[in-house]
Amino acid sequence: MVKARATIADIAAEVGVSVPTVSKVLNGRVDVAEATRLRIEEALSRHEYRKPVSSRAAGVKASGPRLLDLVFHEGENLWAQEIINGVERVCGPERVGVVLSGLGGSHRPPQEWIDDVMARRPLGVLLVLSGLDETQRHQLHSRSIPFVVLDTQGNPPTDVPTVGSNNWNGGLVATQHLIGLGHRRIGVIMGPSDVLCSRARVDGFRSAHDEAGLPWDPSLIRWGEFAAGSGFHHAMEVLARPDRPTAIFAGSDYVALGIARAAREHGLRIPEDLSIVGYDDLPITQWLNPPLTTVNQPLRAMGGLAAQMLLTLADGRAPSSTRVDLMTELVVRDSTAPPATV
Amino acid sequence: MVKARATIADIAAEVGVSVPTVSKVLNGRVDVAEATRLRIEEALSRHEYRKPVSSRAAGVKASGPRLLDLVFHEGENLWAQEIINGVERVCGPERVGVVLSGLGGSHRPPQEWIDDVMARRPLGVLLVLSGLDETQRHQLHSRSIPFVVLDTQGNPPTDVPTVGSNNWNGGLVATQHLIGLGHRRIGVIMGPSDVLCSRARVDGFRSAHDEAGLPWDPSLIRWGEFAAGSGFHHAMEVLARPDRPTAIFAGSDYVALGIARAAREHGLRIPEDLSIVGYDDLPITQWLNPPLTTVNQPLRAMGGLAAQMLLTLADGRAPSSTRVDLMTELVVRDSTAPPATV
Repeated sequence: MVKARATIADIAAEVGVSVPTVSKVLNGRVDVAEATRLRIEEALSRHEYRKPVSSRAAGVKASGPRLLDLVFHEGENLWAQEIINGVERVCGPERVGVVLSGLGGSHRPPQEWIDDVMARRPLGVLLVLSGLDETQRHQLHSRSIPFVVLDTQGNPPTDVPTVGSNNWNGGLVATQHLIGLGHRRIGVIMGPSDVLCSRARVDGFRSAHDEAGLPWDPSLIRWGEFAAGSGFHHAMEVLARPDRPTAIFAGSDYVALGIARAAREHGLRIPEDLSIVGYDDLPITQWLNPPLTTVNQPLRAMGGLAAQMLLTLADGRAPSSTRVDLMTELVVRDSTAPPATV
Repeated sequence: MVKARATIADIAAEVGVSVPTVSKVLNGRVDVAEATRLRIEEALSRHEYRKPVSSRAAGVKASGPRLLDLVFHEGENLWAQEIINGVERVCGPERVGVVLSGLGGSHRPPQEWIDDVMARRPLGVLLVLSGLDETQRHQLHSRSIPFVVLDTQGNPPTDVPTVGSNNWNGGLVATQHLIGLGHRRIGVIMGPSDVLCSRARVDGFRSAHDEAGLPWDPSLIRWGEFAAGSGFHHAMEVLARPDRPTAIFAGSDYVALGIARAAREHGLRIPEDLSIVGYDDLPITQWLNPPLTTVNQPLRAMGGLAAQMLLTLADGRAPSSTRVDLMTELVVRDSTAPPATV
């Protein structure tokens, strides 16, 4: 499969344009007619053209700004802040500027975003909870702009460098903790069922029951959103049942906040009447009332590792591993206790 | 005071270098000998050289990436996230990339940071809780890179465009609310005494008392940090007093979280035994137990307005105002109630 590499001159000759015109397109300049740009893009794609890394890196070092693009599909909560801090901690000392983009909830960047990325030529692109389509991937590839997916959903593309965490294990240890305290009727209020990390956490929940030889009640497993409002809504229903659970495993710390509010509305004390385990271990959870028992998802470490991976790739070197899951672990605080009836 | 403007050619002739060398320095290139660079910087500064805005803006539009630099002296909490969201909301639709820099607690960016900014030539620089020294200000000015200070501390340089909020009013309305509920013994746990926004909030607290013809107890005014740990530490002491306050005005929502923890340790219920008013109105406060009464500091709006101001300045136009304080207002939730003894 090794073939002679097409040069910019080859591409230019084939399309029938000048070499500077091909260069302009590669550098994200907008002063090329759209039809011409599309023909050049097509030829670049067909030849799997890739800008040599060494010359580009040298050029960047000599004059251009060193940037890393960080893309969120939303940036509305503390969770994003943790990742940003992890990335900053790696990029700051390297004097690499971090360019933030929020996609306002969209899971795929619009084409204008890709155009802007090509114009600013970052060292790399870090995507959080978002992906690229085939064309967008090729566009970055042909400019030798590496990208890494920070995967909090457990659904990484197979051929893309990814940093994630072990969601199944998170569900397992949260549930083992509750079973160990004596709970036998445990609910789950999770994120969306079509997001793999949600499914992995619930599978961990089931496996903890299976391992202990205990049944679990499918009607106590609720799918929703990773948000406080969703936790509140589902918990209001679940806690109104005569056979209400004595403990709930929350899909996120925000969901746990909503569950706690619902418990108060039902006159239930935490942890005496209801134990709650959160997920993420956001820094604020230690200051909640009561301080939250939660699964630590190492968001900061994940952000830092992904940034490090990108800088390594931008240097033309191969990272030691391109598919990394960091470990999750339980942090026990005061929102869990043995059930009152035991 | 109007004088003929020095051109790049004038500067080059005076220093005895070529015009391209002066251009390189203006564009943040590093391939100029340090001694030469310093002589050129000195001449630029002495002549108050300023790169023409129009040609630069046109150049940026034609090819370069459109960036805005956002600088925090720290970025560790939700508070930063609110400002980032406000800036993103303005820059996203304008296709302006937001470059984040955290200064790790330092209040003044190091020279390398300024060098990096000059190399990436952003449309503007937005400084949060940090300032520039005279040299740094001149360096940005000579490149026609405008900057705006987002002032959460109430201490804006007089000649710099600034967006702030009315801290004195925040302290006033928080305290009026508590006095209105019947509290006559009210404590304050504030941020640092050498930060002007702290002093303004405490002055508002005093004025509310004066206005109502009530005394205030200086021993109940504590200065600390804008952090949960500081709220906890001070509240543990204040609440141990036999003449403990029936209400506390917290310098920030994080401080309020620490005070609430201390109240629990003292066996005090919120709001029955102790009312608490926070400051900032971070989104999470509505989900706290109990939901927090707090002063809304419009961080998101402040970030958006500051970004808008920068884009206007980058366009070579004058913003309608360059010194804006947004209004603060009280958001009443469940952490405040009449004192038990009334």
